[in-house]
Amino acid sequence: MIKKEMLYEGKAKQIYKTKEDDKLIVLFKDDATAFNGEKKGQISGKGIMNNKISNIFFKLLADNNVPTHLLEEISETEVLVRKLEIIPVEVVMRNIAAGSLAKRLGLEEGTVMSQPVLEFYYKDDDLGDPMINEYHIYAQKMADREEIARIKELSFKINELLIDFLKDKGIELVDFKLEFGKGSDGKIYLGDEISPDTCRFWDSETREKLDKDRFRRDLGGVEGAYQEILRRLQG
Amino acid sequence: MIKKEMLYEGKAKQIYKTKEDDKLIVLFKDDATAFNGEKKGQISGKGIMNNKISNIFFKLLADNNVPTHLLEEISETEVLVRKLEIIPVEVVMRNIAAGSLAKRLGLEEGTVMSQPVLEFYYKDDDLGDPMINEYHIYAQKMADREEIARIKELSFKINELLIDFLKDKGIELVDFKLEFGKGSDGKIYLGDEISPDTCRFWDSETREKLDKDRFRRDLGGVEGAYQEILRRLQG
Repeated sequence: MIKKEMLYEGKAKQIYKTKEDDKLIVLFKDDATAFNGEKKGQISGKGIMNNKISNIFFKLLADNNVPTHLLEEISETEVLVRKLEIIPVEVVMRNIAAGSLAKRLGLEEGTVMSQPVLEFYYKDDDLGDPMINEYHIYAQKMADREEIARIKELSFKINELLIDFLKDKGIELVDFKLEFGKGSDGKIYLGDEISPDTCRFWDSETREKLDKDRFRRDLGGVEGAYQEILRRLQG
Repeated sequence: MIKKEMLYEGKAKQIYKTKEDDKLIVLFKDDATAFNGEKKGQISGKGIMNNKISNIFFKLLADNNVPTHLLEEISETEVLVRKLEIIPVEVVMRNIAAGSLAKRLGLEEGTVMSQPVLEFYYKDDDLGDPMINEYHIYAQKMADREEIARIKELSFKINELLIDFLKDKGIELVDFKLEFGKGSDGKIYLGDEISPDTCRFWDSETREKLDKDRFRRDLGGVEGAYQEILRRLQG
């Protein structure tokens, strides 16, 4: 599959057309940003690591009947994916309070939630990706009720699958972001990526952070944390 | 019914015990605050006007099978109400974009929403009353699924009833806040008040603001706006 012109360049990925209309190539970059692009940097080898990590998760999900956009690994940094009509809503699933959830509810970071918390955010950089709810989504016609019901069902299922998978690897799934889109068949597919860029992973024993918070909060050892996640997932 | 000791003093109301355990007296004050208490002032006659306005709405709702805490008008500024176990969640219903909704979604103030938008806020002054969703409510055990389903059902019904009632008075219902609580019978009742303090009312023709936004935004004519709402409701 040959890359044709670049369709879009995001903070951490480039998207290319292919000769088939309904397939795209995603290239994972080493670039890292945080705080809506205010903080910028590079994480050496991140493109390769996130591609590998995300593919492990996406295959696990596909094996468990979660439809994903992943079609084929092409190279160390590239995947062939199903083209989706993007739904401009990010889903955040949270099992343990951290980041904006800890701040919003006045909880100490690390507080285990009594049940998983699903949040919706409107993907809009100019507005700072504000938190929204289902009624905002329907009123603004970002998605309809049936689509949101399916997205919620898939998100809770993905959370269960990932928690179980990661437990054996000594990793606590604190929270993570998902993006969904509609395929040409009208069905909902999981898109984007699942990686230390989009999840909070803590070591189950030490609660050491093994994710992008090391970059966001200048904790050092960023590359090492990503490598450690990849090593444990491959082990 | 004789007032006994004051239980609680809020920004705009005082709550007193009575000799009956399950009944309270609410006294409406002239004090006004905005922006989580940062702006303070007095609106002359507001206590009397809001009590009268709120009672008109609460009677309309009771006549349409919406259970409310209102039992009896006692004086120009006081009502006898059913004691409720407060649910620490504010419901905001929005028909037209204004205030934080306009800002959140990047909409011009006055944009008519394609369908009503319901929002939940966590009643917590220290946290600045953050917007939350149902999953935050369940995880933090602020209310259970059955209670929230009932609160949503009542909120949409109240919105319909108020829109219809106000249309004939030349008033556009932009948005409003509701609070609910549980009675000693375990049922959900509407509490708090419905007044220009808790609603955005616009003149249907001129779109002139007839509510607390005149105070928040220093538009002048605050007392006149409250009087005008009372006059139209009584007419």
